[in-house]
Amino acid sequence: MQKKGLLIVVSGPSGAGKGTVLAHTIAKYSNLKYSVSVTTRAPRAGEVDGVNYFFKSVKEFEEMIARCEFLEYKRVYDNYYGTPLVNVQKQLDDGYDVVLEIDTEGALDVKNIYPDAVMIFISPAKRSTIEERLRGRSTESEEQIQTRTQSALKEIRQAVFYDYIVVNEDSQKGAMDIIAIIEAEKCKVKNNKKFIDNLINGGK
Amino acid sequence: MQKKGLLIVVSGPSGAGKGTVLAHTIAKYSNLKYSVSVTTRAPRAGEVDGVNYFFKSVKEFEEMIARCEFLEYKRVYDNYYGTPLVNVQKQLDDGYDVVLEIDTEGALDVKNIYPDAVMIFISPAKRSTIEERLRGRSTESEEQIQTRTQSALKEIRQAVFYDYIVVNEDSQKGAMDIIAIIEAEKCKVKNNKKFIDNLINGGK
Repeated sequence: MQKKGLLIVVSGPSGAGKGTVLAHTIAKYSNLKYSVSVTTRAPRAGEVDGVNYFFKSVKEFEEMIARCEFLEYKRVYDNYYGTPLVNVQKQLDDGYDVVLEIDTEGALDVKNIYPDAVMIFISPAKRSTIEERLRGRSTESEEQIQTRTQSALKEIRQAVFYDYIVVNEDSQKGAMDIIAIIEAEKCKVKNNKKFIDNLINGGK
Repeated sequence: MQKKGLLIVVSGPSGAGKGTVLAHTIAKYSNLKYSVSVTTRAPRAGEVDGVNYFFKSVKEFEEMIARCEFLEYKRVYDNYYGTPLVNVQKQLDDGYDVVLEIDTEGALDVKNIYPDAVMIFISPAKRSTIEERLRGRSTESEEQIQTRTQSALKEIRQAVFYDYIVVNEDSQKGAMDIIAIIEAEKCKVKNNKKFIDNLINGGK
């Protein structure tokens, strides 16, 4: 029905299990593709340019910023990370649905540039889950865990700016929810104006 | 996540195959229930009061109209048909999702009274399908078929007022689309404000 793909933006606090939910989603729903980010950090062993990241120099990255070639970008310590607009556009034009996994700040930038983006917030089921997951996977101090928990709660406050919230109690169920959201969005009247117009005015 | 059910309004031109799609949907998705309508027409053989319809006298029906007890109602020749507000409300409060299959006029009345209703338009894939289905099932004259086709096109023009359009090329796929819409709606941030508030402010 709809040729052009959907841009799906996924955010959520660390400890919400975004990565696992998205991996299940992409495994089940082959039309959904990750966007490949651009970075200035050095490739790690086994990473392939154009597959894991597009690896660029700081100079190249800053030239891309100057040419407004990013949907969103950020600097983390000495490295830049960004979502290249033209590549995302190419994937969407090819009919793929594209998912960006970005923080709430970058997500709102994307929504400004691309208002049709479908905004999904992945949340833990309970507040205590965040702390448990951070504790479970890290060797950080109690103080660091508390800081990260507070930062997670700050992210959760941004959930109200999203279209959907997927509660990750079970990552397979979370993936099914994301697929349902994509399927439902493809049925939205606003995404099928051309079809309706053809039905009313078009030939048989 | 959400206790209260969703009110789903389904419309579509005759010949779109609404009935079959909804029957498949309810068979697959047990939380979805039909609303039982009120009518003044006489029960047919095998019809049970409170199951197929609530059977009322014209006087009783008109008293219900006067008491604003209908979400929508219409008169077809000598008989009234209506959706009783209190019964729908009870099903929703019990956590069921409730589907109303009504014409575009009634659907807009429901949306006025119940703005959270999820509006789904079921459409044939091609304009020619409407005519073919009308021809296939009826013994009507060519003129009647043309009149009904025109009236179907008039209904399709109302599709733009709906939230979703489900194209019924395959009634099983149509049912899956409706289920995806319901699942996605349950993930909408606006339907989970209490959950988000609990996550931010509530206890552990």
